[in-house]
Amino acid sequence: MKQQPSPLPDTLPQTDLTRHRRLRDQGSLRRADLDAILDAGFVCHLGVVVDGRPLVVPTVYGRDERQLYLHGSVASRSLEGGTPVCVTVTHVDGLVLARSVFEHGVNYRSAVIHGIPRQVTDPEEKLAGLRLLTEHATPGQWSYARRPNRKELAATALLALSLEEASVKIRTGAPDDGDGPDAELGLWAGVLPLTSAWGAAVPDPRLPPDIAVPEHIARREGTRHG
Amino acid sequence: MKQQPSPLPDTLPQTDLTRHRRLRDQGSLRRADLDAILDAGFVCHLGVVVDGRPLVVPTVYGRDERQLYLHGSVASRSLEGGTPVCVTVTHVDGLVLARSVFEHGVNYRSAVIHGIPRQVTDPEEKLAGLRLLTEHATPGQWSYARRPNRKELAATALLALSLEEASVKIRTGAPDDGDGPDAELGLWAGVLPLTSAWGAAVPDPRLPPDIAVPEHIARREGTRHG
Repeated sequence: MKQQPSPLPDTLPQTDLTRHRRLRDQGSLRRADLDAILDAGFVCHLGVVVDGRPLVVPTVYGRDERQLYLHGSVASRSLEGGTPVCVTVTHVDGLVLARSVFEHGVNYRSAVIHGIPRQVTDPEEKLAGLRLLTEHATPGQWSYARRPNRKELAATALLALSLEEASVKIRTGAPDDGDGPDAELGLWAGVLPLTSAWGAAVPDPRLPPDIAVPEHIARREGTRHG
Repeated sequence: MKQQPSPLPDTLPQTDLTRHRRLRDQGSLRRADLDAILDAGFVCHLGVVVDGRPLVVPTVYGRDERQLYLHGSVASRSLEGGTPVCVTVTHVDGLVLARSVFEHGVNYRSAVIHGIPRQVTDPEEKLAGLRLLTEHATPGQWSYARRPNRKELAATALLALSLEEASVKIRTGAPDDGDGPDAELGLWAGVLPLTSAWGAAVPDPRLPPDIAVPEHIARREGTRHG
């Protein structure tokens, strides 16, 4: 029987790459916060260095306990040969409207993962990774849709990135200038929340009218995302 | 009288950095599309190279006709001395649920800007840039809140980045496998839309109860974002 790898530590590491240098009170070292941020979204921003210059592209991801799986085509030409990447997932929760412009800010949850991704080539692992990716965005879809055949699997670039070296920042709550001199200005201050939600499924116009929206998709209508 | 600079061209340039290499049908060369994507959001992902490794951080931005203004503190230590950056703004509009997993995708609008940012040091330009940034996120807030004093202005790092070298990708509409062999599978296919909207303003708990939400904030409740 294959030995299970030990789980990643509950506390995130503090390395040269992950240590919080600014706004340290917004930093979290809880791996549970990292997991929650990753699970709340499905699009990340993948940063790579190409000819010495940064390139940041959005792409979709899924995860297991130890690794992020990324749809890698967008950056595949840049990711041969084990070059480092930075993957950032951000949820914007609202505008922090303070009394002073200086104290304005954003309520957000953000995860930053550093590492050198691995191109997934083993067909079995690729299939498992694509399943995680598909189910992450749309639970129930892997068993509903037609799964990749051998040719499609070969044409799909998938990256695996360890979740070991990661950092998290979170800001919640009211503005910070509620007890300074600016509180005397008589100005309104607070938070303008921003939320993201799934709408009603829109059928492909080419779909025969007798094919109903499957339950695993229909039930998301009106639910919150992010 | 100061001469006005000529406006940026209506068509985006095709350079080594901006040329679309993948999914070319999703590429747009219209500057109007770039402007619309930038105006629909206020948080970007800023990519820089630090010690040869990529770093991607979320930050807020505003813009005028020619330049993006970025709140630069998050990356300021990395941005002294004219290093290149990549700024990406992405709006996720929905999941594209095809008949086959292989054809699954995302409806999105994404702008990628390349350049070497300039640290804004002139206090007058800094004030103007912060105004753009503040008004971009919350129209009406610059004239409502207390503006930065000299000390706050000096403590704020602001970057200006030319909007010249930029690329845009947009995907809209139904899945692509509606007329291939998979259309015969009898599976539902379509789009699950994702929308973002502003909620009701939440007052700072320390706010005296007689201070009402100002009109420029209250009127955003329920409006769409992104």
